[in-house]
Amino acid sequence: MKQVDVMVREVGLRDGLQIHPTFMPTEQKLAWIAAESAAGVAEIEVTSYVPPKLIPQFADAEAVTRGALEIPGLLVAALIPNLRGAERGVTLGARKLNFVMSVSRTHNQKNVRREREESVADFKNIVAMVRALPAAQRPLVGGGLSTALGCSYEGRVSVDDVVRYAVQLAEAGADEIVVADTVGYADPVQVRTVFKAVIAAVGTLPVAAHFHDTRGTGLANVSAALECGVRRFDASLAGLGGCPFAPGASGNIVMDDLCFMLDSMGLVTGVDLESLLKVREIVRTALPDIEMHGAIARAGLPQNYVNADARRAA
Amino acid sequence: MKQVDVMVREVGLRDGLQIHPTFMPTEQKLAWIAAESAAGVAEIEVTSYVPPKLIPQFADAEAVTRGALEIPGLLVAALIPNLRGAERGVTLGARKLNFVMSVSRTHNQKNVRREREESVADFKNIVAMVRALPAAQRPLVGGGLSTALGCSYEGRVSVDDVVRYAVQLAEAGADEIVVADTVGYADPVQVRTVFKAVIAAVGTLPVAAHFHDTRGTGLANVSAALECGVRRFDASLAGLGGCPFAPGASGNIVMDDLCFMLDSMGLVTGVDLESLLKVREIVRTALPDIEMHGAIARAGLPQNYVNADARRAA
Repeated sequence: MKQVDVMVREVGLRDGLQIHPTFMPTEQKLAWIAAESAAGVAEIEVTSYVPPKLIPQFADAEAVTRGALEIPGLLVAALIPNLRGAERGVTLGARKLNFVMSVSRTHNQKNVRREREESVADFKNIVAMVRALPAAQRPLVGGGLSTALGCSYEGRVSVDDVVRYAVQLAEAGADEIVVADTVGYADPVQVRTVFKAVIAAVGTLPVAAHFHDTRGTGLANVSAALECGVRRFDASLAGLGGCPFAPGASGNIVMDDLCFMLDSMGLVTGVDLESLLKVREIVRTALPDIEMHGAIARAGLPQNYVNADARRAA
Repeated sequence: MKQVDVMVREVGLRDGLQIHPTFMPTEQKLAWIAAESAAGVAEIEVTSYVPPKLIPQFADAEAVTRGALEIPGLLVAALIPNLRGAERGVTLGARKLNFVMSVSRTHNQKNVRREREESVADFKNIVAMVRALPAAQRPLVGGGLSTALGCSYEGRVSVDDVVRYAVQLAEAGADEIVVADTVGYADPVQVRTVFKAVIAAVGTLPVAAHFHDTRGTGLANVSAALECGVRRFDASLAGLGGCPFAPGASGNIVMDDLCFMLDSMGLVTGVDLESLLKVREIVRTALPDIEMHGAIARAGLPQNYVNADARRAA
């Protein structure tokens, strides 16, 4: 596997599609996954194991997972809302299960109808289930903290709460902590405060960032998180995304723009930008009505641009 | 005058309108200037003293300048391409004249048909003319460096060149140095490199940043420049803007989003965000065909948002 400085993970098939009313056909999802994997994105959250009656977009979770698992070298991840979802993921053979709870009490209630302590207990059960599996079958388990930088119901969220639940998920056995700005409230000062606190609290456990660009600060927040040592970022191709339970939330940060900025900064992502930009056509064709974002797709690379890999080699 | 942490300066009436094919009526320009001044933007680049046959949008430079000068407390700035433009500005009573040259040789040739050394000589003549005026009539003189973070003809631009011309403009008598990413090539690493070098080279002279958001990195670059100590930022309402001689360049960073990010970071700008957002309606009405950008205008402020001033007072 190619050595990278920063891991970028595609979440558009889950976060980007979950509020989109049109079902994206399974073959198109798999074409997207295959093309983005070929462009160098090594980890993709391909679906969510929520009940299809809650989010019909994920009615094909089984087929998408099985299809994605056939792509060599791809880390196939999926969102899990609870133990039942985790069990589905294990049965299918998903390699990473991304559990998510909200740091904000109100948002956690609205999103999963649980007290936060109940969500932590759920996570412990999930980890116990996974650890009881034979080693070869065990998926990685991500511990995600939604609304860690603000909540559309409660406003600012206490840093102490973020640290508390990060530590609880870490102690419960998460393989990484994902700190999410679900509704796009964060600024670089907040990001530095929260990520420094979480990183200090969870020791050597990797901490990933999941930003939305709702208020234009997405890439500024990436830059701030990089300064704190974060080297794992979620993004969605063309900035698709949102949260059905967070009014006003719009897309994730744009994968294409993220990869450009990181590469321009001299950080190798393993992603070939031109191949990545071509993947947008798959989405555009499959979902002509979806709102697509992205500055690099419009403006193109700078004149005489030399990518980070080549600059380093020179 | 209100104490601010960061000075934001509107450049949309110049940089935003210069490539727009539709003439914005003078009364509408003045309504925009008055409303944005009332919203708390203390410095506005209201026009450019280029020959109207070059850029017809600025055919009303005299009327706009005179009208803007009637607005109490507003620092009325204007772009000057050369000594003749500076003389027009002085005659009109503009309070700040923003000279601009390109660090990239090719871009300077295309933009003002001068070698860079000739541009520096022009600037010296402008400063000499201004210094010969009675003190009460002397405008401030800004020394702007275009393409300081990349050139659409030459690609990457040498940091040594940026520093060389910054020092030459500083020694010639500039009241501030404006480092501009004219074509939106910059990333936060470049920004830190270039601004640290320029700030170290020009001593106590203020260094301002002028970023375009062409490739999505505009606010990330602001955050990086803030870390270097920059406290003066150009922006345009709704991200209007571009450069007629820089293919692919799109808008300046969005004033509204900039003000939100700075305020969210705890930095007082003196700008009332809700009043600022209302100014967009003036532009929308006057120029229905212009492309307007902005995340805050779409998403609104975060729930229970408390501005920096009030947080500090609390």
